[in-house]
Amino acid sequence: MASVPSHAFASDNAAPAHPTVIDAIIAANHGAVASYGNDPVTQHAAEALKAIFDSPDAEVLFALTGTAANIIALASAVRPWQEILCSDIAHSLVDEAGGPVRLSGAPLTKLSSDDGLIDPAALDAAVARRGPVHHSQPRIASITQSTENGRIWTPHAIKTFIDHAHDLDLLVHIDGSRIANAIAALDVSPAAAVADADIITVGGTKNGMLMGDAILVRRPDLFDGIHFVQKQIGQLASKQRFVAAQFEAMLNDGLWLQTAAHANHMSARLSAGLQALGLRLAAPTEANEVFVDLEPAAYAAVSAGYAVHRPDPLLPTVRFVCSWATTDAEVDDVLELLAPIATPRR
Amino acid sequence: MASVPSHAFASDNAAPAHPTVIDAIIAANHGAVASYGNDPVTQHAAEALKAIFDSPDAEVLFALTGTAANIIALASAVRPWQEILCSDIAHSLVDEAGGPVRLSGAPLTKLSSDDGLIDPAALDAAVARRGPVHHSQPRIASITQSTENGRIWTPHAIKTFIDHAHDLDLLVHIDGSRIANAIAALDVSPAAAVADADIITVGGTKNGMLMGDAILVRRPDLFDGIHFVQKQIGQLASKQRFVAAQFEAMLNDGLWLQTAAHANHMSARLSAGLQALGLRLAAPTEANEVFVDLEPAAYAAVSAGYAVHRPDPLLPTVRFVCSWATTDAEVDDVLELLAPIATPRR
Amino acid sequence: MASVPSHAFASDNAAPAHPTVIDAIIAANHGAVASYGNDPVTQHAAEALKAIFDSPDAEVLFALTGTAANIIALASAVRPWQEILCSDIAHSLVDEAGGPVRLSGAPLTKLSSDDGLIDPAALDAAVARRGPVHHSQPRIASITQSTENGRIWTPHAIKTFIDHAHDLDLLVHIDGSRIANAIAALDVSPAAAVADADIITVGGTKNGMLMGDAILVRRPDLFDGIHFVQKQIGQLASKQRFVAAQFEAMLNDGLWLQTAAHANHMSARLSAGLQALGLRLAAPTEANEVFVDLEPAAYAAVSAGYAVHRPDPLLPTVRFVCSWATTDAEVDDVLELLAPIATPRR
Amino acid sequence: MASVPSHAFASDNAAPAHPTVIDAIIAANHGAVASYGNDPVTQHAAEALKAIFDSPDAEVLFALTGTAANIIALASAVRPWQEILCSDIAHSLVDEAGGPVRLSGAPLTKLSSDDGLIDPAALDAAVARRGPVHHSQPRIASITQSTENGRIWTPHAIKTFIDHAHDLDLLVHIDGSRIANAIAALDVSPAAAVADADIITVGGTKNGMLMGDAILVRRPDLFDGIHFVQKQIGQLASKQRFVAAQFEAMLNDGLWLQTAAHANHMSARLSAGLQALGLRLAAPTEANEVFVDLEPAAYAAVSAGYAVHRPDPLLPTVRFVCSWATTDAEVDDVLELLAPIATPRR
Repeated sequence: MASVPSHAFASDNAAPAHPTVIDAIIAANHGAVASYGNDPVTQHAAEALKAIFDSPDAEVLFALTGTAANIIALASAVRPWQEILCSDIAHSLVDEAGGPVRLSGAPLTKLSSDDGLIDPAALDAAVARRGPVHHSQPRIASITQSTENGRIWTPHAIKTFIDHAHDLDLLVHIDGSRIANAIAALDVSPAAAVADADIITVGGTKNGMLMGDAILVRRPDLFDGIHFVQKQIGQLASKQRFVAAQFEAMLNDGLWLQTAAHANHMSARLSAGLQALGLRLAAPTEANEVFVDLEPAAYAAVSAGYAVHRPDPLLPTVRFVCSWATTDAEVDDVLELLAPIATPRR
Repeated sequence: MASVPSHAFASDNAAPAHPTVIDAIIAANHGAVASYGNDPVTQHAAEALKAIFDSPDAEVLFALTGTAANIIALASAVRPWQEILCSDIAHSLVDEAGGPVRLSGAPLTKLSSDDGLIDPAALDAAVARRGPVHHSQPRIASITQSTENGRIWTPHAIKTFIDHAHDLDLLVHIDGSRIANAIAALDVSPAAAVADADIITVGGTKNGMLMGDAILVRRPDLFDGIHFVQKQIGQLASKQRFVAAQFEAMLNDGLWLQTAAHANHMSARLSAGLQALGLRLAAPTEANEVFVDLEPAAYAAVSAGYAVHRPDPLLPTVRFVCSWATTDAEVDDVLELLAPIATPRR
Repeated sequence: MASVPSHAFASDNAAPAHPTVIDAIIAANHGAVASYGNDPVTQHAAEALKAIFDSPDAEVLFALTGTAANIIALASAVRPWQEILCSDIAHSLVDEAGGPVRLSGAPLTKLSSDDGLIDPAALDAAVARRGPVHHSQPRIASITQSTENGRIWTPHAIKTFIDHAHDLDLLVHIDGSRIANAIAALDVSPAAAVADADIITVGGTKNGMLMGDAILVRRPDLFDGIHFVQKQIGQLASKQRFVAAQFEAMLNDGLWLQTAAHANHMSARLSAGLQALGLRLAAPTEANEVFVDLEPAAYAAVSAGYAVHRPDPLLPTVRFVCSWATTDAEVDDVLELLAPIATPRR
Repeated sequence: MASVPSHAFASDNAAPAHPTVIDAIIAANHGAVASYGNDPVTQHAAEALKAIFDSPDAEVLFALTGTAANIIALASAVRPWQEILCSDIAHSLVDEAGGPVRLSGAPLTKLSSDDGLIDPAALDAAVARRGPVHHSQPRIASITQSTENGRIWTPHAIKTFIDHAHDLDLLVHIDGSRIANAIAALDVSPAAAVADADIITVGGTKNGMLMGDAILVRRPDLFDGIHFVQKQIGQLASKQRFVAAQFEAMLNDGLWLQTAAHANHMSARLSAGLQALGLRLAAPTEANEVFVDLEPAAYAAVSAGYAVHRPDPLLPTVRFVCSWATTDAEVDDVLELLAPIATPRR
């Protein structure tokens, strides 16, 4: 056990960058090139992303954080009298300091969910008040794949949801901050994991990069000001090659799915171990996050060794996130810390 | 001469990153650490910046682009019924796509200037309409050091301006996207180059980093929501150590001033050469930018070898920007391209 | 029964203006006076309102609609990284087209309620996530007296709520679009009906005016930009005497409470009659609104004679609103329409 | 001379309402009618306005103040990365507390003008920076008829300007706060006075109403969210019949042009008298405003009797505005006050 708590499970954004990413930055670091994305590296990375998601007519933008990518997508989707629908645990709703509201001028309205998985029928109620000038007009639904609670939309579920949204004249945004974890866990094509979503943010930071999240705009006509929004919030990097090079490295040879699969595997191992100790999961472990309810003594024991996050200060649920860099030894260490004092909840 | 135009003079943000910066990233890339800036590297870099600017009570934030740093500073300074004053060529006014207006909800009002250098008396006129509820209320003046046209505020001039602004109950922001070039050119302490400014953005990207601009908040009480604004526009990097490490590398042993001094020196050399050819400068060369008026034939000759920027499509002025990576050979090459056809303007 | 449906129960804003209000406008309509509220009539009306609510240190602003009054109050209370709390049926949340969000840049977060009456304990959960820069920061709670469902906060309940909010460092706004109905029903002093609320909008339009809602700012230091917000959304009438004169007429000799008491009385009569027919109320009738569940046939019978509002298109609840102008005959007419076909719900 | 300064020349919004307007309100004040504009009076007034401006396909909205009408028009015309062009003295730029900026999120960029009359060539320069994502994109030009300095666009001049704007793919808004004064002065049809403008605000308040300004949307497809913007800033009056009735009264039998012509006539008389005293006008008198330069003693003499406005506190120019209610006696009184001490400027 470390004398200073380790951040190995605090979040996948506490992890370092994958060495291949560093190599790619070094490789991109020669000579003067056109700034603001008018460079060959950016072009290559964008093409790679479009090909992977089977979206030849899409546009690709590179933002610097996942929060920014979500804001750019949502703020370019709506006008201030429209409405954004999302789950009750959506990162955009609860963890972006109100940024999407501030930028769009429109409300984010929460729909109840099962760990972030939303019943398509919830959309029907949301659009029932459409029409009169007194009400905000629903325009886009934002879902997260994998969800903030580590759940996964199956290809069938996500297709059903998106098709229903489209039937109701709603666009769909996917917050893909951890989309690689979903794709790796599902073991389907990236295109199947996102169905017919209109705009998708593809997380790079948590997946193994220094920083950077891409935006895949599959319906550019419906997000016509998106390049301006990106610029207006300072997300158009002048030396964009350094973001794009990281993506190119991750997408090449499937590295992004390998890192994700490793993180998923570590989470599965941790989850199984916790359950073997008799602890109760607060959500099924489907990707690279584990949510478990810990009694105060158990929480204290873990906290001595590892900084971990409690999403709701009023609840006993503790979150462990695994990354590309998580090791078997770290998982074992957590389980050892808990073994003597785990108090299963009945 | 290259067959494809070189970007060596297009902008200092077309340059690569300094090798020392890459080394610093590699050094920072081990282990899991606290995200969002709660890590030791961020702490060290912030302390270094405060020490260099003799601002022990300041707060430091790291943003990812210069546009973002300006927006965060300005949007946290004003409420929507207040007013931001700036020069007629301010980057925030003309090159940030209206981002500062969108985020602050307040107008940016331009004051006439001499290449971005503003007569303090212009502030008196600006505050004359203060009071009545019908008018936006001036709150902060934003100046740029060195200016967008490559001019430098002397320590005396900047102190006079800022003191006068303070007398008028105006705050002062310095857009320091190229502040290192100003400090190096003036050969004074960083503190002298910024006088008593209330908030300063310190450019890292153009100075030799991959990306990153710092914000030095010297009056934290007057920018109380600034950390939220940073988060709300997706500028709080989760793996912030990688931005901070770059700053630490640049600030250590004065590397930031060495890279700036080199860029200044290259500009001085280019400027002298252009004048020797009989060409007319559109602005005095004081930092790392050269503005020269070129006839169409001369512009065409340069353009065959180098991508260069014309700030105003209606004017013949062409901008050359030198960086830490600009070479004597590149400067000579430009002069050779122009020598046969330079048509001095009389 | 009218051949064209009557709007007598559609809303209290469908009613005409009280004759005394017209007389006051005529009386104010002579000579040129200072515009934008710098006139004696405005001064008198403001003083009257302050006296009635026992708020000698308050400021008074006159807005032109209730939606505007709410927006001005809320948008001047918060900065975009803060949060507004309200009930799940708050007018500001569901019937102002997102205006409070657009103007404030901050989210309105709904708390569950009993017909708009919120348990003070709901505030504790709302403030539990305060602190970290990732979350919007709760700043003000907005409640409605009487509520959108026609319920009334008792003096004890509203004092308890507001005191608890203050203990949690939350401000409190009262949407008083129908505050006269609450005061008249409670038969207490206006001050007792609002307890220690920090800002109160006082509805004039629904109470019997042509148009106009006042804002009583009891903590002017905490709403320091409110006059600018009023101006910025075009709510500072140049000929403000004509709004103020209406308020003066209503407040003088208690006319505002007499009109409200009449509306309440008509609602009580209608409510009793509906219940006597065996119909089920959807909410207790406490002020001037009656909510009753109607089967399709009953709804059709009423609709033939009266335009009435169904707040939720998915529910069978129908709203009747009485005004100062509602007559016994109109109430009787509704009951007669329903008598033959009312199907009591079991 | 009054012992308290008269507001007869302070502004046309200091005047009372025309008696015919009061009568119209009284006539509209019976029975319950549909709220929010779904009433016959609103319908009639809208049709009258459309007919008068020869705009059968237009939509009409009624706002409550001129500032609001401008904001609704401009904020529904642009998205936050676009740009609004206006004159350097535009009311929207200098007298609306930044409201149009706050609501639109876009900058208002001033073009130099001759008392508000803009050379069409100024538009060419404004659109020259269009295209790159770094710059706000010009979308609409706002002009004022008659201008804030009392000048009039001739039918030829306004047609030339608007046609040129359209050629440059710019929309045109007319701030018609005093449009009746322009039409009456030009003695042309209303349609000729506005040429092919895309959206026009038609001032009622200054023309003789209690309050109310209409918005004539001639290209509804290009202002598709305008009804929502109106609602979002609380400008959709529930008892809208009382605004519409005033408009109907003014537009009927040309009363609006008669009141405007009277105001113009009073201004012409005052202007002639001031010039006969040897005083220098600061702008030609073309509508109902007179701008004259007064030495301190002359200003003091006038101020003893009349509250008058000095638009720029640093200049000696004083503004007199005449209204439908201005009398010959009041004009004579001003001239008498000035006669003994007028110091003509040479």
